[in-house]
Amino acid sequence: MASSDFARLPGFRDFAPDEMALRRHVFGAWGRVARRYAFRQYDGPPLEPLELYVEKSGEEIVGQLYAFTDRGGREVAMRPEMTPSLARILAERSRAMPKPIRWFSTPQLFRYERQQRGRLREHFQWNVDIVGEAGVSADAEVLAVALDGLRELGLGPDDVRARVSDRRLLAAILDGLGVSPDDHVAAFGVIDKVERQPRERSLERLTDEAGMSSAAAETLLSLLEEGDIDDVRTTFGDHPAVGEALDGFEAYLGLLDALGFGAFIDFDLRIVRGLAYYTGIVFEVFDARGELRAVCGGGRYDRLLELVGGQPLPAVGFGMGDVVLTELLRDLDRLPDVAPGVDYFIAIIGDDLRPRALDLARQLRDAGSSVAYPLKSQAVRKQFKAAENEGAKRVIVMAPDEVERGEAVVRDMESGWERTVSLDRLVGALEGE
Amino acid sequence: MASSDFARLPGFRDFAPDEMALRRHVFGAWGRVARRYAFRQYDGPPLEPLELYVEKSGEEIVGQLYAFTDRGGREVAMRPEMTPSLARILAERSRAMPKPIRWFSTPQLFRYERQQRGRLREHFQWNVDIVGEAGVSADAEVLAVALDGLRELGLGPDDVRARVSDRRLLAAILDGLGVSPDDHVAAFGVIDKVERQPRERSLERLTDEAGMSSAAAETLLSLLEEGDIDDVRTTFGDHPAVGEALDGFEAYLGLLDALGFGAFIDFDLRIVRGLAYYTGIVFEVFDARGELRAVCGGGRYDRLLELVGGQPLPAVGFGMGDVVLTELLRDLDRLPDVAPGVDYFIAIIGDDLRPRALDLARQLRDAGSSVAYPLKSQAVRKQFKAAENEGAKRVIVMAPDEVERGEAVVRDMESGWERTVSLDRLVGALEGE
Repeated sequence: MASSDFARLPGFRDFAPDEMALRRHVFGAWGRVARRYAFRQYDGPPLEPLELYVEKSGEEIVGQLYAFTDRGGREVAMRPEMTPSLARILAERSRAMPKPIRWFSTPQLFRYERQQRGRLREHFQWNVDIVGEAGVSADAEVLAVALDGLRELGLGPDDVRARVSDRRLLAAILDGLGVSPDDHVAAFGVIDKVERQPRERSLERLTDEAGMSSAAAETLLSLLEEGDIDDVRTTFGDHPAVGEALDGFEAYLGLLDALGFGAFIDFDLRIVRGLAYYTGIVFEVFDARGELRAVCGGGRYDRLLELVGGQPLPAVGFGMGDVVLTELLRDLDRLPDVAPGVDYFIAIIGDDLRPRALDLARQLRDAGSSVAYPLKSQAVRKQFKAAENEGAKRVIVMAPDEVERGEAVVRDMESGWERTVSLDRLVGALEGE
Repeated sequence: MASSDFARLPGFRDFAPDEMALRRHVFGAWGRVARRYAFRQYDGPPLEPLELYVEKSGEEIVGQLYAFTDRGGREVAMRPEMTPSLARILAERSRAMPKPIRWFSTPQLFRYERQQRGRLREHFQWNVDIVGEAGVSADAEVLAVALDGLRELGLGPDDVRARVSDRRLLAAILDGLGVSPDDHVAAFGVIDKVERQPRERSLERLTDEAGMSSAAAETLLSLLEEGDIDDVRTTFGDHPAVGEALDGFEAYLGLLDALGFGAFIDFDLRIVRGLAYYTGIVFEVFDARGELRAVCGGGRYDRLLELVGGQPLPAVGFGMGDVVLTELLRDLDRLPDVAPGVDYFIAIIGDDLRPRALDLARQLRDAGSSVAYPLKSQAVRKQFKAAENEGAKRVIVMAPDEVERGEAVVRDMESGWERTVSLDRLVGALEGE
């Protein structure tokens, strides 16, 4: 039978040990940082009722679901994002829990996207959320976790930039520009696409679809393109809703400064986030050269928990995918060496010594070391080759004459240095170094 | 909208943080032990082509697959076991790899089983395999990993028993009893069920289905029920195939002794393992009281890689599920305390001090500590309550008078002991302890 009959599905990844070691490197940083910020890990099922995503996740996602009918006639879907599962779990449990709730997760997510270069159909995503706190302190804490996660992986403000905005501020600006509340959704839709369409097209759509005057559309577009916070305050300072939103936003930026991440932040009103459920501050993190898709995106979603039948709890969080991030780390040469490595390889000269060798392996393993030995009789040369393949730091040679004297030769594989050690004291002697 | 609209699927688990901490406890032991035995971690996709399981996994599994047609018209299935994925990955990559290959994984697996108490539709499974070595050293090494994983979780030979057999030995015994090779599959089928059906029924089936004489069936059944290795040698010692299989099996037991696990082992010819692909030594690990389903099962499968189009490589491995294991650990009270815990909670008296508090949080986190602080202004009493909820070991109180003097009060939450520390030296002073 040809192996091609059993190729893995397009858009899915195998993780052989070297690839798995890189995944563990990224997951390790994510977990360490989340715990430093006092977040606790959770998980949910990779398969959920289909209805959990319909209406809440936005049309784009629903059109890309791995959805099917299970053997019990239930409409189910492989999870395309984690937040609906989080909302579902909390809807059941949050009432008894002290707030705020600080949870993180690293789920694998699935979307049937059209096959393109670099686009996969699964990825792992670091999800970090604070639930039950409406103030900007929670927003700042969550973005700090995202940026500290990147910093933990060796990325600084020259490598990644956090583009932050506030949907409430943008709505207040639209108010200030005379856009009717009924047209806000349309205006948000155009703004979300501003970077991916010609300027003329954006102006045209803002007048056609959001009912703006040409002058107002021009003012808005200029703000989107190069406005800083002072520009917003100068232009709309006398509009109370804008002033209020700005005060909150500036407090947020001040907190990010205090948390040590001010240098990563760019104010950017073009960040809207497609998903329907965001309600306040939103952000996306990109590589500084702007070559890749977003590394991370998130924001405040104060109504989602209520939507799935839970307590009405404010919430803020982000998702950071492993694919773009690992691509960026590779481009910037920040990935670690993932060669195999074991502490000891026990070479066995003559199969009579195998029981002694296995007993030594047991002692070394009990003391916490990693140990390999040949699983069949082999020439010494082959055994040293196997030790190299395993990345052994030291080879312990069990040979008849030495063992009879109660000794073994230990070779340090990097320096080539050898010495003879008493077998009785070998474990303690080696472990003590 | 009622929350019941969004209940999780039956047979699937949510892992809130306390449950997740228990899962991490088990996964942690699995990973540490696998690495001590020089195994490297891999992973594959949770969704695979359906055909990967058809014919190779046995009818029972195929009837329980979460299988569907994806948006591209492909027949796909959520993985019900890991070994076919391992075989697929190695079929593509093994030629370039040094042998033996020592890999482990902890996949989540899916089966649509009929709903019964304690039966789930997903579980996590520790998969450990050695590929490329046919000798019993590999069989012993693999079972030692399984038993050391259980030992790492606090289980000894009084808690769990490994029941080991060899399908080659059983086949040789059947030969010795005059069962034609054509009837071996039928005989194996009866033997696999011996413990779950009345003795009379087994005798009847052995004569009816496997063409055995009543005397031969009686001899076999007695061996299955209480035969030790000496009984086998006494009864069939002059049959060369039995003698050869016994020699190998005894060498295997000797290696397990040398590796320190002899006390866990029971010879038991009734262990056959349902899956079609096993070819040699097989084993199952049970709780010693025999109250639960198998904690672990595995064995040698020398033909599977060839079946999926790869190099013909001998292989041996096991799968250990998290559900039964965690049940057993809970029954025996061997699960750890999983209460939340952070190193520091910073209480903030007066919001003017918030930036100073966040700066201190940053320093402590940079030094590797876990830190929480209130995300809004709160009375001190409430902040201490929050610190308790977070399981804080220490509370650092940032209060106006002390901060003006460059100091903060640090309270040890267990002892209640308080002292005043200089803010400049606080991080170093606390970390140094």
